[in-house]
Amino acid sequence: MNGLIMDYPLTTNTILEYGNSVFHHKKIITYLPNGTRHEYLFGDMYKRCKQLANALTQKLGITKGDMVGTFAWNHGPHIELYYGISGVGAVCHTINIRLSAQQTEYIVNNSEDKVIFVDATLVPLLEKIAPLFETVECFVLLNAPKDFVTTLPNTMHYEDLIADQSEDFDWPTLDENDACGMCYTSGTTGLPKGVLYSHRSTFLHASTILAPNAGNVSTRDIILLIVPQFHVMAWGYPYMCLLSGSDMVMPSSNLKPDALIKILIEEKVTKANGVPSIWLGVYDEMKKNPPKEKLALEEYLVGGSALPMSLIDNFERDFGIKGVQAWGMTETSPLGTLCRLQPKHDQLPYQEKLKIRAKQGIAFPGVELRIMKDDGTLAPKDGKTMGELQVKGAWTVSAYFKTNNHESFTKDGWFKTGDVSTIDEDGYMHITDRTKDLIKSGGEWISSVALESALISHPKIKEAAVIAIPDAKWVERPLALLVLNNTQDRPTDKELIAFLAQDFAKYQIPTDYVEVDEVPKTSVGKFDKKEIRKSYAEGKLTKAL
Amino acid sequence: MNGLIMDYPLTTNTILEYGNSVFHHKKIITYLPNGTRHEYLFGDMYKRCKQLANALTQKLGITKGDMVGTFAWNHGPHIELYYGISGVGAVCHTINIRLSAQQTEYIVNNSEDKVIFVDATLVPLLEKIAPLFETVECFVLLNAPKDFVTTLPNTMHYEDLIADQSEDFDWPTLDENDACGMCYTSGTTGLPKGVLYSHRSTFLHASTILAPNAGNVSTRDIILLIVPQFHVMAWGYPYMCLLSGSDMVMPSSNLKPDALIKILIEEKVTKANGVPSIWLGVYDEMKKNPPKEKLALEEYLVGGSALPMSLIDNFERDFGIKGVQAWGMTETSPLGTLCRLQPKHDQLPYQEKLKIRAKQGIAFPGVELRIMKDDGTLAPKDGKTMGELQVKGAWTVSAYFKTNNHESFTKDGWFKTGDVSTIDEDGYMHITDRTKDLIKSGGEWISSVALESALISHPKIKEAAVIAIPDAKWVERPLALLVLNNTQDRPTDKELIAFLAQDFAKYQIPTDYVEVDEVPKTSVGKFDKKEIRKSYAEGKLTKAL
Repeated sequence: MNGLIMDYPLTTNTILEYGNSVFHHKKIITYLPNGTRHEYLFGDMYKRCKQLANALTQKLGITKGDMVGTFAWNHGPHIELYYGISGVGAVCHTINIRLSAQQTEYIVNNSEDKVIFVDATLVPLLEKIAPLFETVECFVLLNAPKDFVTTLPNTMHYEDLIADQSEDFDWPTLDENDACGMCYTSGTTGLPKGVLYSHRSTFLHASTILAPNAGNVSTRDIILLIVPQFHVMAWGYPYMCLLSGSDMVMPSSNLKPDALIKILIEEKVTKANGVPSIWLGVYDEMKKNPPKEKLALEEYLVGGSALPMSLIDNFERDFGIKGVQAWGMTETSPLGTLCRLQPKHDQLPYQEKLKIRAKQGIAFPGVELRIMKDDGTLAPKDGKTMGELQVKGAWTVSAYFKTNNHESFTKDGWFKTGDVSTIDEDGYMHITDRTKDLIKSGGEWISSVALESALISHPKIKEAAVIAIPDAKWVERPLALLVLNNTQDRPTDKELIAFLAQDFAKYQIPTDYVEVDEVPKTSVGKFDKKEIRKSYAEGKLTKAL
Repeated sequence: MNGLIMDYPLTTNTILEYGNSVFHHKKIITYLPNGTRHEYLFGDMYKRCKQLANALTQKLGITKGDMVGTFAWNHGPHIELYYGISGVGAVCHTINIRLSAQQTEYIVNNSEDKVIFVDATLVPLLEKIAPLFETVECFVLLNAPKDFVTTLPNTMHYEDLIADQSEDFDWPTLDENDACGMCYTSGTTGLPKGVLYSHRSTFLHASTILAPNAGNVSTRDIILLIVPQFHVMAWGYPYMCLLSGSDMVMPSSNLKPDALIKILIEEKVTKANGVPSIWLGVYDEMKKNPPKEKLALEEYLVGGSALPMSLIDNFERDFGIKGVQAWGMTETSPLGTLCRLQPKHDQLPYQEKLKIRAKQGIAFPGVELRIMKDDGTLAPKDGKTMGELQVKGAWTVSAYFKTNNHESFTKDGWFKTGDVSTIDEDGYMHITDRTKDLIKSGGEWISSVALESALISHPKIKEAAVIAIPDAKWVERPLALLVLNNTQDRPTDKELIAFLAQDFAKYQIPTDYVEVDEVPKTSVGKFDKKEIRKSYAEGKLTKAL
C-alpha cells in the first residue's frame, strides 16, 4: 500500500526555497576579515544563490556530482556557496583551512575538486600547494579587492562571476539520497577521511535540531555561527537558520575573545555555538573586562570536546549565560546528542544538576546509541559500565569516501566512534575518553577526560591535558600537562593530589605534573594528544611544577 | 554518489523505540469514561505495545498491510493501538465515532477492516450495523467490565488479548513509504474519502511540529489531547509526545467544559489542542466560574475552523492564555500552517497583532502553499488576492484510497483544498472561506468566515453562521444564523447592520438575521453548512430577530 503520500524529496533546495518564502526579511550579518560589517537579507542571498547556480552550470561547467571546494571563513557568500553548489546537484566540499599543507593537498586531490572558492586572506595558504592540485581547473576569489594579486592560476572574482547572471534558475530534480556536502575528518589518527552528506541527512539533521529539547531555535533568535563553515557544515546551523528564520551573524576571522564579545553585544546575539576553548577565552575576557550590560546571549552550544563543569558553573553564576553540551563527529553530521535538564531533575541540588549538564546528553530522534564492551557484549544502561560508543541513524555515514568495509563500521551496520562512554537509564550519554586516550593502570581504566575536567576546576589551573605514559610497574600511569592562571602562583603536586582525592581513587590520581605554556591543539581546537605523546617521547615535557 | 549515509527508515517504530529509550519515565494519564484517573509510564505502554504486537500477529493473524479499525476515545490503550498496529506493518484505521450509521458502515466496508477495537461505551453504536460489516472477523473490547454483554459477534477483551503475551517482539523491517494509519474525511460533500498516511509522513509531520516556531513542544510540557484520536491521528500529538517526552493527558469522553477545566487544573496541563467550539465552551465556563488560581496552561492550539479574534482576545486578557491558530486537513496529516508573531511584529499595536494572529499562519518546512485564481493563474502574495489554496508537501496525500485521478488533485501534483485564501508577502495564509461557502452577490465575493468572525465579537452574540441564500436581484445574498448570549437581550437588525458597517462594505452586510438555539455541526465540530442550507430550503429557518 505504497505511495499515497506525495513524493517530496528533502533537499537543500527545499530548505532554501522555504527560507525565502517565509523568512526573506531575516538577516545575514557578516563581520568581514577587515572588520567591516555587512548586512543583507535572506531574500537577497536567495537571489545570489540563483545567480551562482547559473554561473556554476553555464560559466564553470559544473554538472551533477561534481566536487566544488570552498576554502573560506564564515560569511554570506560562503552561505550562498552551500546552497548554490548543492542546489545544482554538485557537492559542496568545505576544506579545513587549518590543516597542514600536506593534508590539504591530499584532500583536494582525493576529493577531485574541480573549482575552489577561496577567501582572499587565505590565498597565501593555497598558493604554495596549488601546483600540486591535480583536478582543480580554476579558483574563485572571495572578498578580494579588485587589484588583488596572486600566483594562483585561472582566478576570477566571485562578484564578477555572478554579477551578470540571471536571478531565475530552475533547480534540477534531485534524489534526496544524492550527496550535497562533504567534509574530511581532521585526521588525527592518519590520513583525513572523506565524509559525504546527503540532501536527506542534511535536511533531517537541521530540521530535528530546531526542537526545544535540542537547539531550541526559532525566528526569535539571532545566532552567532562561531563554528567554522569548514568544520562539519558549521554543525548544520546554515540550514537550521533558514528553516527557523533565525538571523545569522557570521564572524569570518574575527574569532578573538574581544572581537566575539563585541559582536555578541552589538548584534544582540541570543545563541551561539563553538568549541570549549572559544568559550573559555570569552569567559576569561568577560571576567577581565566585564560588559556594562547583561548580554542578550541566553546560551552557548558546545561540542567538539567536553564542556568543563567549571566553565558551565562560572559562566552561569557570573553572567547568567547557560552552557549547553552537545556531542557529535564529522561522521554524524555532526550532532548526535545534546544535554538539557528535564523536569525530573528540577529538585536536584545545584551540584548534581551540574554533573548531569556536563554529560553529553540524550540522542536526537533519528539517532541510536549503544555501548559495546571489550568482550563484544552490549553494556547495560547503568551510567557506569564503560565501553565503545557506537551510533546508527538517519544522518550517520555508512562508509568513508572511496573506501569499503572500513574498520570503523560494524558488521551489523553501526559506526564505531572510538569514544569510550557510559549511558544511564534515561539515555544520558557520558564520554569518558577516546579509546586511544584511556589509561590502563594496574589493570584498571582511568579516564583522562574526567581528570582534565577536575583539574581545570582548580582555581590555579587554566587548562589541563592528561595522557598515559609507560610505567614499569603499572604498565601505564597518567601524566598531567597544566597551563597555569598565574605562573607566580604555582600549585604543588601535593596540593593537586589532595584536590583530586576528593573525587578520585588513589590509583587514578596522577603523580606527575608538567607545566606548559599551552596545550597543543588540532585544527579544530581539540587537545592534540598524539602531539603531546610525541613531545613526551622526545623528552620535551620536563618542566615539573 | 548515493548511499554514503545509513539507510534509516523513518517509521512509527523508530518513534516508539526512541520514546522508550529516553523518555520511559514520562507519563500517560487517562481520565476514563467513568471519570476514574489512570496513570502509567511510556515504558509501561511500550511493553504493552509489544504484547499487543504478539497478539495481533499470533492470535489475530494480522499481517502486513491488513486494516485494523479502532472505534474509541482518547486513552492509553488507544495509544498502544497506534503503535502496536502500525508496528507490525498493519494500518491503524481510526474510525470517527460521530459519523452516521450509514457512513460508518460504508467506511468499515470500504477500508476492509479485519478487526475492530471498540470502547465499551461505544459498543451500542456498532451493534446495530455490525451485521452489515463484510470483512470484520472479530471485535476487541476496550475498557469493558468483565461481565460486559453485547450482541457483537466474536468479541474478546483487550486485556485478555494481551495478558499472556511476551514483552519481546522484533519489529519487522518496514519501508518508510508503507502505510501506517488511515482516516476518512468527514464527508460533508459526499461519501467519506479514505486517506492513508505513510510511516515517513507521520514521522516527518510529528518531528517538524516540535519546533519552537510550530508547536513548541518539549519534555517540559504536559499536553491535554482534546482532539480525538479518531480525528486525523489527534493531529499527530501521540507521535509528537513520544518524540519530545511530553506527558500526555487523555480525556476520553470527559469533554464537557467543566470536566476539561478540572483536568487542566489537576494535571497542571501546559498545552492543549482542540477545535474552536471546545475553547469557546471552556472560556465561557471559566468566565462563569473563574478558577481560583492561574492555570498552568500557556497556550491552546486551534484548528479545524477559524479561531475567532474575539476569543483570542478574551482568553488572553481575562486569563493570560494564548490562542494559537493552526490550519490543516485530513489530507495534510493534518497540520500545514501555524500562526505565531515574529520579532518584526513586536512594535505593532495590539489590534494589529490580533489581526495577524487570526490568520492561519505560515507553512511548516516540508509544506508548500499557493493560491490559484479562478482564471487558472497564480495569485500574487499580497495578502489581498483571493483564490483556491493548493498544497504540496512531505505529508500531503497524492490520492484518495481506492481512487485515481480524483478532481482534488491538479495535473502538476498539488492538492486542491477547497479553501479560499490569501497569502501575504511574509507567507501568512488567511482562509477567507470554503469554495462552496463563498457568497457571490451582485458579481462580488462575500466571505462568510469574515462575517461570522465579526458577528461573534458582538457582545450579544454567542455563535454566528453565515450562508448564501438565493436572491432574485443579486443572485445570492448572505443570511446569518445567530445563537444569542441572552434571549432576553436581542440585538436588532439595524443594530447589527450598523455594527458590521464598521468593517464591511454595504453590499457585504447581511440584511437577514435568524435566531437559532444552536448551529448544526459536523462530526468534527465544524459548522455543517450543508445541513443549514437544507434547513433553509425546507423553510425551517424562519425565526427572525
